Formats: sequence, C-alpha cells, structure tokens
Amino acid sequence: MVDMDTLVGLCKRRGIIFQSSEIYGGFGSCWDYGPLGVELKRNIKEAWWRTNVQERDDMVGLDSSILAHPKVWVASGHLEHFTDPLVDCKACKRRFRADQIEGDRCPECGGELTEVRQFNTMFKTFVGPVEDDASVTYLRPETCQGIFVNFENVLNASRKKLPFGIAQIGKSFRNEITTGNFIFRTREFEQMEIEYFVRPGEDEAWFHRWVQDRLNWWTELGIRKENLRLRPHPQEALAHYSKATTDIEYLFPFGWGELEGIANRTDYDLRQHSKFSGHDLHYFDEETKEHVTPFVIEPSSGVDRALLAFLLDAYYEEPDKDEIRVVLKLHPRIAPIKVAVLPLSKKPNLIEVAKSIRAELAKHWTVDYDDRQSIGRRYRRQDEIGTPLCVTVDFQTLEDKAVTIRDRDTMDQVRIPVEELVPALRDRLDP
Amino acid sequence: MVDMDTLVGLCKRRGIIFQSSEIYGGFGSCWDYGPLGVELKRNIKEAWWRTNVQERDDMVGLDSSILAHPKVWVASGHLEHFTDPLVDCKACKRRFRADQIEGDRCPECGGELTEVRQFNTMFKTFVGPVEDDASVTYLRPETCQGIFVNFENVLNASRKKLPFGIAQIGKSFRNEITTGNFIFRTREFEQMEIEYFVRPGEDEAWFHRWVQDRLNWWTELGIRKENLRLRPHPQEALAHYSKATTDIEYLFPFGWGELEGIANRTDYDLRQHSKFSGHDLHYFDEETKEHVTPFVIEPSSGVDRALLAFLLDAYYEEPDKDEIRVVLKLHPRIAPIKVAVLPLSKKPNLIEVAKSIRAELAKHWTVDYDDRQSIGRRYRRQDEIGTPLCVTVDFQTLEDKAVTIRDRDTMDQVRIPVEELVPALRDRLDP
Repeated sequence: MVDMDTLVGLCKRRGIIFQSSEIYGGFGSCWDYGPLGVELKRNIKEAWWRTNVQERDDMVGLDSSILAHPKVWVASGHLEHFTDPLVDCKACKRRFRADQIEGDRCPECGGELTEVRQFNTMFKTFVGPVEDDASVTYLRPETCQGIFVNFENVLNASRKKLPFGIAQIGKSFRNEITTGNFIFRTREFEQMEIEYFVRPGEDEAWFHRWVQDRLNWWTELGIRKENLRLRPHPQEALAHYSKATTDIEYLFPFGWGELEGIANRTDYDLRQHSKFSGHDLHYFDEETKEHVTPFVIEPSSGVDRALLAFLLDAYYEEPDKDEIRVVLKLHPRIAPIKVAVLPLSKKPNLIEVAKSIRAELAKHWTVDYDDRQSIGRRYRRQDEIGTPLCVTVDFQTLEDKAVTIRDRDTMDQVRIPVEELVPALRDRLDP
Repeated sequence: MVDMDTLVGLCKRRGIIFQSSEIYGGFGSCWDYGPLGVELKRNIKEAWWRTNVQERDDMVGLDSSILAHPKVWVASGHLEHFTDPLVDCKACKRRFRADQIEGDRCPECGGELTEVRQFNTMFKTFVGPVEDDASVTYLRPETCQGIFVNFENVLNASRKKLPFGIAQIGKSFRNEITTGNFIFRTREFEQMEIEYFVRPGEDEAWFHRWVQDRLNWWTELGIRKENLRLRPHPQEALAHYSKATTDIEYLFPFGWGELEGIANRTDYDLRQHSKFSGHDLHYFDEETKEHVTPFVIEPSSGVDRALLAFLLDAYYEEPDKDEIRVVLKLHPRIAPIKVAVLPLSKKPNLIEVAKSIRAELAKHWTVDYDDRQSIGRRYRRQDEIGTPLCVTVDFQTLEDKAVTIRDRDTMDQVRIPVEELVPALRDRLDP
C-alpha cells in the first residue's frame, strides 16, 4: 500500500487537499479541499445520501444547525462527560493526553508532568453581543443530537411509521489534544450519520442488519474486502449509552483505524432529551395503542476519513514500458472528474470541435479539458487523479465525426461516433 | 404575495424548516432544515454548482475549513473593521444596533442608552486545550477568505489561466445584534460565493457580465422578473475594498432585500494577504512575462435567503372547486420531491406494483410514496410541497401495465405504459 507521505504529496500537487491557512504556516489540524478534493467529497456524500436516503422508503434527511441551545449539551451528557484526560509538561509546556503516554515523565523532554485534569473537547463560543455566561454555547461535537431534538418535528411532518431513520451530513468540531495522520483525526471534520428508530426488542436484529448494510456500501464503492474488518467493542469498553457497538475499520498505512461506528444507543438519547426539555419524545403506536420510546441504531462515519480510505485503496503504481504509471482506480461514481476531453493538436478547427464536445458533456458530468503536452502525459495526469474515461479528438474526427474513448483501468481504446458519445459514456460511468 | 406567517406555518407543518432546539425554547436565530428543507437546500446548491462550476471551463471549486489561522482575520480587516455599533438600555438591558434606532432613548422602554461601542460580530472560539490568547480564533464570517488564502495552491494545481474563478459553498457565522425575518438574517447561514480573478483593466467588463449572469440564474430557476431588481450601491456607501457593488434584490413580504451582492473587490484581498503572510500572491502572465495581481469580481449569495425567495415566489393559492388549492410552483430542478407514487387502493397486488415502481424511480429521483386518504387529498399534499409530478397506480394498471402521470401546474393527466415511465418523467423534469 502507498505510504502517507506519497499520498499527501499527490493531494497537494494535484489540488485534492491543502493545509488550512498554509500561507500563514498552517492551522490547528484543519484542512482545505481543493478543486479535485471538493468534487471527490461531494461525490462521497452524494453516494451516501443516495443509498441511505433517496433509494430507501424508510429514511428521511435533516440539516440541523451547528450552533444549538446549550441545554442540548447538558442533556446529551457532553458538557459533563465529553472530556479527555490532559497533562502538561512543567518544563517544555507541551500538552498530552494522559491515556496516550507511558510512564510519568514528558515523552518529549523528560520533564515533570502536572496532575491529570479533565478537559472538555467541545469548542466554546459566545452567542449574542456580550461574553457572559448566559450566552455560552458550543460547536456541535456530533451531528446526531440535532436529529434527536428534532425527532418529534420530523415524525409529525413526515408521518413515518417505525422503523424509520433520519440521516444527516454536516460539520462537527472536536478540540482534540492530539491530532494527526493527515485528515484522519482533525479538529474540524464532516460526519455522515443515521439515527434509525426501532421498536424496543427489534433493536438487536436491526443493529446486525445495519452493520451488514454499511459494510456492503464500502465494498460496493470499491474498497477491497481485505482492507476492511469488523471490530465489535468488548462489553466493558462500551460508551455509557451503548448496548453494543461495532466499528468498521480500514487498514490505513498507520494501522487499522475506524471508518464507521455502528452503535445500539438504546432509548438513552430520547429519554435524556425528554427529561431535560420536559417534552415527552415518544412514538404512538396506532396498532397497539401504546406510547413507545424507540431504540436507536446509529451508523456514523466521517466524510474525511472516507475520502482518505477511498484514495488509499484506489492508489496503484503499475509498470508501464520503462516508467511507472500512477493510477487512482476510484469507482466512477466517486471519481472527481468523470471524463477528460483531449484534442490531439491545437489547430483551431480541432479545438472548436473539442470545446463543443466538452460543453455538451459538461451538462452531464464534471469534465476536464486539456490541450497541453503530449497525449501520453495527459493520459498519465488523468490516471493520477482517477478520471475513468478520456475522449480523444483527432484529425480523423473532422472527417468521420468519431472520437476515441480510452479506459483508465484497462487502457483499452474504442472509437465511437460523436453523436453516440453521451449514451456510451453513461453506460461506462453508471454500470 | 403570501405573508410570512403563512409561509413559516407551512414550513413547520410540512417539514421544511424548524426552529433550532425548539424543544428547549429555540435558540439564537438558528434554524434546522427538515426532510423537505434539506432536499430543497441540496437542490439549490446543486443547481448553483452545476451552472457556476460544472458547466463552465473557467471555474473550479473549493471547500475550505470554517476555522482558520487568526492572522487571516487580521489581514482581511475583519478583526479591526467587522463591527456593528452597539448600545445598551441602562433600564431594561436590551441591546440595539445604534444605527437602527431613532433618537437617543430605548425604543422598548424609553430608558437611557449607553454610549455607542463597536462590537465585533465574529464568533470567537479557542483552539487547543487551554483558553489563552495564543489560541483564540473565529468562526469565519464569510467563505471568500478561504479562497484568497488558497489562491496560489489552486493556481498551481489547476493550471488555470486568467480569467478564472474559484467557487465555494459553505457555512458562515455572524454574531448579529439584530436578527429576524425567519431565515433572512440569521447567525448561522450558508453562502454560495465566487471569486473570479481577472486582469486589471478587464474588471469592469467582467463585473457587468457577472451581474447579468447571476440575474439570469435566478430567473431561469423560476423567480419572477418583477420580483427582482438591481441596486447599485452609491459610491459613498461602498465597502473600503470595493470599487463597485450591485445587489440583486428580491421583493420579500417585508420589503426589498438582498439576495446576492456582486462586488468588484479590486486587488485588495490578494494584496492584503501578500502583505500579512509575506507570500507574494500573484499571477505570472506567460504572454507578457509580467507578474500581475489579479482583480476580483465576487458574486456572493446566501443559500438560506435563496431558499426563502424560491418558496415565496413559488407559493400560489388557487380556487379549486369550492376550496383553495395551495401549490408551490417550484422549478422541477429544485423541487424537494420530484415524483410521488400514489396507489389508488391498499389491495396487496396494487401495493406490490406501486412499491416496485417507487423503487425503480428512486434510483433516479427523490420519490414520495403515499397510500393514505383520498387521492384528492394526496394530490393536494403533493401540490403544497411542490412535487411536479404524481404517478397514480390503479386497478387498470394490473391489466394494461400503464399508469397516470398528473402534472402539478396544469393538473393535466396522461396515461403512460410503465416501461416508458422513466424517460417520460425525465422529459418532464429536465426540460
């Protein structure tokens, strides 16, 4: 597998990911997605939404705000429990997570450490014109609480019956003491979360079904099975709200790491918000005439980690004549650019045809247009960013009104009449 | 035009927009988008991205982080200048923007007001484990600075030539003293911004072209021309970085309000970031062999305001027999649900066919499925949320393998074989 330095270099060079505020020396483990990164990220989110919301009849979406009433974080337990144990080195002033260092001396300078204190990892801010205690709130550390506090609103408006789920994609923030591994652990990140509400007693069956459904999603989008594994959490390591949690892990260059967690959160969240809001969050079962507090199955994954895993898994270096061909074998659905249009010369009549083909294809897909350097180098550039198909326009095109489609993975070429190009590309891109 | 109370009621009842943290009494002028709202918002952003990024060959996208190095806000001028004049009432403790009240007494209780002080409207937060001055930063008040600080990275990676633009959609935050008019002015909001880089001297022509292009976008997506107007800012009211600004305004029920601003920001931003970062942000013109600091044309609009304008403009109440038909005549491209599948009875063999049609259509579009109450009431429900097409499955369907398509705006019905349904719907949805 590719090492992280190579991938980070590719990401910077080709405009996938840049360090945030790089001209100011970078900032706090935040990252910016460049022209290709933003398309890749959009495609991952779109593929997730399509599978988990659009294609299902038991799911709806939500988009709740990042800022919320501070009581939400009291009820959820985040104000009290969302902490990391922190120690400072008295000598070099560096800070560490107490549970990540061995011994009782600073791992950097050997200095004496302070006592362990609990540090809340939510980002604090102040809403309203004056910084006083009344206006303190926090940037959400997870998107799911926005779903729980809207449970009743969504239920009334959508008239869904149990079991049903609410999905959300959005930014979350955690003031991590230690960050790292590129975009794997960052302070600002994006989540894709589902809260699936079921009748108590049906929770265990749904939990196992969601673990399987979510695992399938990763492999259907091209992640190799051997790089994925399920890791059920041992009972003694479960979060206080969880009856069972299984992680889907990916084999990153730095070891197995969490891609997604599926948790059986029981009725903990709805009960907590009922208690703290004085607003009874339940479901009225018309068949049994009973009030039910649903159990919740939560598949929760990170967009940034997903993007990292998709890039790593798609990266290949293949011998090609005397050189090495670098190719990202991304699934066509998530590839940032779907088609590149490459005129073989800069003659005006050829450029004119190539540009009109680009404009036509751009109604359907993200399209790149490149008329610089040799065709071989242009193919290599497209391979390196995972473009599934190249369309080459040559002098023959002016006569036979046909172009060549070149396939990224097989490097096979086939000649197609221009007027059949859109359906021919669609067949290959959306199999 | 519909009044705001009616629209807010529709938004809550049908799951378009809910108040944030409603069960806790609401919070700080933040709003949550429900199952239909999130689809509408996604569609608006998608339509904007498609027109401004995908279909053009001179534009690329970016997705920069919300948190950035604090020096970004020094260089941009936000730390010094992004302030509102604030006064407090000494009696009732309410706060007001000094420039929005008349006279020198509290407009609520008549009490004495404090002196005017400047209040910075950025949200402050602390990055890293300890709240000290070194770690203070701000939630971005606009997405565009993320574009400017990545100018060189994007230029190197994308190899674009002037003129070219960078587009971004994302959340921004402003700690407004006065908020209101539903989602028109909120503390957390989403922006769609373009920074278009041009050669100095070509800026005025590009400014006018962007004003026209952006105006066209709103009308092509269905906003009525008579509800839009251009408002050029008078010279004396321009922001310090601007050479010219024109707002696209919409006639909201509360008066004309800004939908989008197009500004000629000159080379102010790139020069400021060059100066503060020590990193010369320029463009090397290969033809003239000159280093150029490009001028910037910025079309900037709000997703939330756009959504509000689209809803208001699409809202119609029409007489229908003895009743009133409420219909949202949203452009098919932004309608949250594209097709509703409605079986005429709950007989199992009919339900089976209807569900298989739903599943097939859901591969292509957002689809609703509704088998409750009379067909007339179901049509009304779909009209009220702007669903362009309904597909009715009846007993005849079991024999002739055909269904009825009913059009939202004309209420015309036409019978179509099931096997021709996907292309027939595509023709109507993507004209």
